[in-house]
Amino acid sequence: MAEKLPESIRQILEQPYIAHIVTLMPDGSPHVTPVWVDTDGEFVYINTVEGRRKTRNMHRDSRVALSMLDPQDPYQAAVQIRGKVVEMTPQGAEEHADRLAQKYIGQERYTMGAPGEVRLQIKIQPEWVKGPTNGG
Amino acid sequence: MAEKLPESIRQILEQPYIAHIVTLMPDGSPHVTPVWVDTDGEFVYINTVEGRRKTRNMHRDSRVALSMLDPQDPYQAAVQIRGKVVEMTPQGAEEHADRLAQKYIGQERYTMGAPGEVRLQIKIQPEWVKGPTNGG
Repeated sequence: MAEKLPESIRQILEQPYIAHIVTLMPDGSPHVTPVWVDTDGEFVYINTVEGRRKTRNMHRDSRVALSMLDPQDPYQAAVQIRGKVVEMTPQGAEEHADRLAQKYIGQERYTMGAPGEVRLQIKIQPEWVKGPTNGG
Repeated sequence: MAEKLPESIRQILEQPYIAHIVTLMPDGSPHVTPVWVDTDGEFVYINTVEGRRKTRNMHRDSRVALSMLDPQDPYQAAVQIRGKVVEMTPQGAEEHADRLAQKYIGQERYTMGAPGEVRLQIKIQPEWVKGPTNGG
């Protein structure tokens, strides 16, 4: 069971700001890409596709990091998380993509997928968090 | 000698968008924080302070990654870089912080430093880049 995220961090994660997710390459070097995220107040979730670079990286090494900020207030409203992937599942992943599309671009359904691709919902357990309330 | 960055990537790096820099913790797990960046068209530069987490990480392991996007056009104008730190120097680092303050917040001088801190200019050699012109 993960701990509840501080309210100030949850509030930022619930905004439609693009996050940057870091995964580790086979040689241990870092890889970072923009992603949509959401949270249930405990875990952080992203949605991706089987076979992509970050997906292959997460299958091999569960350690990830995430950075997100409010573009209108980047020096105050910023969150950084280090944690690990605890689940990667196709179950409910299409619906999760729809919810993220609603959050980020105001569309009822996620329509940018390619035929045949397998979407995955990725569940991340935060282990270290830094946000607006716990200082520099 | 590093290769010249593609013009489309240089153009984004020259904008005052906050970047996210990834460094590696002692155990190899990733750490990511927001930073100001600039470029000479070949290398990417950030500015930080001796003793900080990311600085200590870069001293130990030169492998870094960077993600940056235009908040107004996040799905088109985005850059990701993987590379290595090739220089960390206090020489010219104060002036570099001033140039970044001009770029990012329109101030002539960087005035957010703390007394006694040692600023460092960090030179990053890109080894893999992804931007708006070379696809998804």
